[in-house]
Parts: sequence; structure tokens; C-alpha cells
Amino acid sequence: MAYEFKVKRCVEFSETDMAGIMHYSNFFRFMETAEHGFYRSLGFSVRMPETDPRLGWPRVHAECDFKKPLRFEDEVEIHLLVTRKGSKSISYQFRFSKLNGQPEEVARGLVTIVCVAYRSDGTMASAPIPTEIADKIEIAPAAMLAS
Amino acid sequence: MAYEFKVKRCVEFSETDMAGIMHYSNFFRFMETAEHGFYRSLGFSVRMPETDPRLGWPRVHAECDFKKPLRFEDEVEIHLLVTRKGSKSISYQFRFSKLNGQPEEVARGLVTIVCVAYRSDGTMASAPIPTEIADKIEIAPAAMLAS
Amino acid sequence: MAYEFKVKRCVEFSETDMAGIMHYSNFFRFMETAEHGFYRSLGFSVRMPETDPRLGWPRVHAECDFKKPLRFEDEVEIHLLVTRKGSKSISYQFRFSKLNGQPEEVARGLVTIVCVAYRSDGTMASAPIPTEIADKIEIAPAAMLAS
Amino acid sequence: MAYEFKVKRCVEFSETDMAGIMHYSNFFRFMETAEHGFYRSLGFSVRMPETDPRLGWPRVHAECDFKKPLRFEDEVEIHLLVTRKGSKSISYQFRFSKLNGQPEEVARGLVTIVCVAYRSDGTMASAPIPTEIADKIEIAPAAMLAS
Repeated sequence: MAYEFKVKRCVEFSETDMAGIMHYSNFFRFMETAEHGFYRSLGFSVRMPETDPRLGWPRVHAECDFKKPLRFEDEVEIHLLVTRKGSKSISYQFRFSKLNGQPEEVARGLVTIVCVAYRSDGTMASAPIPTEIADKIEIAPAAMLAS
Repeated sequence: MAYEFKVKRCVEFSETDMAGIMHYSNFFRFMETAEHGFYRSLGFSVRMPETDPRLGWPRVHAECDFKKPLRFEDEVEIHLLVTRKGSKSISYQFRFSKLNGQPEEVARGLVTIVCVAYRSDGTMASAPIPTEIADKIEIAPAAMLAS
Repeated sequence: MAYEFKVKRCVEFSETDMAGIMHYSNFFRFMETAEHGFYRSLGFSVRMPETDPRLGWPRVHAECDFKKPLRFEDEVEIHLLVTRKGSKSISYQFRFSKLNGQPEEVARGLVTIVCVAYRSDGTMASAPIPTEIADKIEIAPAAMLAS
Repeated sequence: MAYEFKVKRCVEFSETDMAGIMHYSNFFRFMETAEHGFYRSLGFSVRMPETDPRLGWPRVHAECDFKKPLRFEDEVEIHLLVTRKGSKSISYQFRFSKLNGQPEEVARGLVTIVCVAYRSDGTMASAPIPTEIADKIEIAPAAMLAS
């Protein structure tokens, strides 16, 4: 059972904008990077062509609070914590910490994903998270989430 | 005084992902497109090199609820509504409607931006929104926001 | 028979980088936007789920010469010209002109795409461009290409 | 004196497109990632606010030949080689190798960057590469470039 995952990224030039800071949309890209790394750490990938029906993991909600900017070449750690686990959906919190100098939290995000099954016409319907995946995921301890 | 702005976009191939839908980070890019169009409609641009101190408009909060996916070549309207106006910050709601066939709302976002002044060392401090800008912006009617 | 297509774009904030100019990777995104608009102008889309085998249009070569930068809120026209047409591939030239003030060419790109058929295992093999598409496309006049 | 640099990247979900492969514009982002890593390996950064006049490194030419696609979660190595060194410009070759299974080259790119000095009005003029940087960079051996 796992409830957290950490990944590091270095802010690239193409991720900055004319204000000289990382464009805010990239925080959402980085959250997904951590989410997919979490799945890989569980021996699982969102690339699952073999399931029938084919499953997908769209986001139904995403948010982020930005405290301090990130800049080019900043090293950032994204810390994923499981905050909620339902039969068909999971919520993740993401804590962004800048690692240059004294580590400090610069942003905090939240994403809710839902498991969907693709119908033959390409549309989706929510579906139970497969047991072999759900059994590996648990909610983070309350003390961790409270900090 | 203005409280809304509408802009249309066509979903580009580079904005889709391997799930065959528009990647969720692009909703946040589109919100900013509508926000900047709103400023231009007021005769104002976030590109203001001439102010002293130089001003910026970073986001402190952003969120989005995703109801239905957008796909390649979908035409989407982004409808900005002012939901809150403070002395140093403004909140905008964004309603995404897919225009192909019967128009329907596919996502709804919220962004709070804060006015900042850049110090000579490049750091930022929150600052009052200049009067000539603040005077042009008002909160949308409650009846519109309730829908 | 068509040999050209023009589309306009306004440079968005998220497309700039910390150098204050449009990031160079976006010129390649804009070339594709013009290419797909060209196909739509011919009554055709790269989204063709119904063909059997399913066809794709990957790029095998792309290049761009950058003369002047584009900046936030610059209006740019991308002018596509067909420069070469083979049985399985097509080459397009793209001329980027900044429309603010006196129009001037700021960049020129070249892309070669190849028609591929997807095999059942997901791999691709080059395939003849379907006649109904090939018949609508011709090489631009030599005088135009010489300028 | 250095003439090469290698960096690894894992293809992220947000870098794929609806064709199920990495969008071609990201090859150009990855080239820049390798270029900036090369500069850091020399003790140098393109973020140089302290120089007077301020210097920049825009691209004047970029190209890429695509042999095989990259997919989500593919691990790729980008190998930078210096192919040309002038007083004001440098050309880099980039060899993309997919590391999953038997390593194989999937794409090869070329970028020419030019050193520019920013004038007080924000425009740029080409400028000699500072000696302390130029002295650290040399052209890769002909035998390496021939492969």
C-alpha cells in the first residue's frame, strides 16, 4: 500500500514565460508527471492497451495555489500525497518545493481523477478502479496531510 | 465598466494528448488567453514596460472543473466573468462552451490574479491595481454568476 | 487544386519565454496549425477514424530559419505553400509575417510529411496518399516559390 | 574544452498527441534542454543578468529529421555534439536515442544559435561570444560527426 511519491524536475527554458518565471500551466503538467511516476512505482501505467474495455484516467478537477514563483534552472520536488480514495475516483495533493538553497514550499495543488471505461464509439463512462490497482493505494496519514 | 469577455479558439493538434482529447493544462492556457483579451478590450495590456515600478499580474490561485472533453478541431468559446474585485486582486470565472452542434458547457474555471510591483532585485510585492485599470472593471451581475 | 493557405494567430503569453519572445518551438506548432487548416480548406481532416487501414501524417523533416523574433500580442500570418508532392509525401513551406505595422517576414519553415498506414500492432508503414486527397493538392507556381 | 553533452528525458503524457506519439515540437524543446545542460556543464548559464550589455542566445536555424516516433514513458537520450563554432554563432547536432530495449537513434537535429547583445530599447544585435565561454567549446572530432 502506498500513499505518496516524490519526483524532481529542473525548470526548463521553454517552461518560462516573458515574466521570467515558470508559466503557471506547467505546474499542472508537473502534477501529472508525479501522478504517473506514482503509478509506475506501483508497477502500473496509464498506458494500458490490453485491458478490455480500455480504461482512462481523466481529471475532473484540478487546482493550485501559487505562493512563490519558480524560475529557469530551479530544481523543484513534487510530492504527491493521496488525500481521498473512492471506488471510481482518487484525489491527490501535490506539494511543490524549491530545492535550491533552503527548501521551501512554493505551490500546492489538488487533482481529482476518475477511472473511465471507453465505449466502442470513443465516449467514456466512469468505472470502478480495478482491484489490483485500488488495493495498492491508500490515503496518507492525517498528520501528514495536516501539515 | 466591463465585467465579461468572450473569445473563441479552435483546439489544435498539438494541444491534444494520447488519450485523444485536449490536455487539461491547456484549459489554463485558454483562461489566460481570455484574460488578456479582456484587458485588451479595456485598452490595456499586461505588457506594460513603461510603468515605474514595473507591474506584473501573477496568478495566486487557479482551478478548473472538467465536465466533458474537448477534441481536435472542436471550436470552443471561453467566457470570462469578473467574480470578485479587491484593491490588489481580481477573480475571474471562465466558462468553456463547445460550439460544434448544440452549444454546451464543458468546463468551468476560476483564477485569482494579484497585481505586483517588481523591486529592483527582481522580486515582487503585491501592489494596488492602478486606478485607471480598476475603474474599468466591475463584478458581473449576481444573476449571471448564479447560472 | 490548391497550393496555398493562410492563417493568422496572435502570440499568446504562454507562448513567450523568459527572453521576452515567442519560444522557437511554437513556430513548429504554428506550421502544423496552417497545415491542418489547409486540409480543412480541402474538406479533409487528419482526424480520419473511418479509413481502413487508419492513416496518419507524421513529419519526417522539419526546419525553420528565424530572422526576427515574435513577441506577445504580435499578430502573425502563416502562409503555407506546397513545394513538393510525391506519391507518399508532401513538402510545405511556411512564411511567417508579422502584421503589426509594416508587414515583414520574420521566419520561414519547411516541413515534409509522409502518409502512413497503421498496422494492427500500432506500428506504421508509409502508404500512398489517397487519390481523393492527392488530387486536390498541387505544387505552388515557381514564381511564388522563388520570392 | 568540451564538444559534447548527454542528457536523458522520459517522455511525459503531456508531450504526446492524439496520434499516440510525442508531438514533434517537443524534439526542439529537448534540444534546448541538452544545450542548456551543456552550458551548465561548462559552469555557465543562459541566465546571465549581470553582463553589460545583457546577452542572449536566440536560435537562427533549427531542423530535425524524424526516423521513428517516441511514445509515452520512453526513455530518450539526447546527445549534443558541437559541429561548428564561429566568432558569433555555434551549431549543435542532437542525436536522439531511445533507450528502452536495444538503443537506436530515432531522430537527429541541428540548431544554430547566435550570441546577441540587447540594446537599451530591447532590440538585439549579434555580438562576439565572450572569450571565457568560447574558450571552453570546441568542435567535435570529425570521426564522431561522420557516424
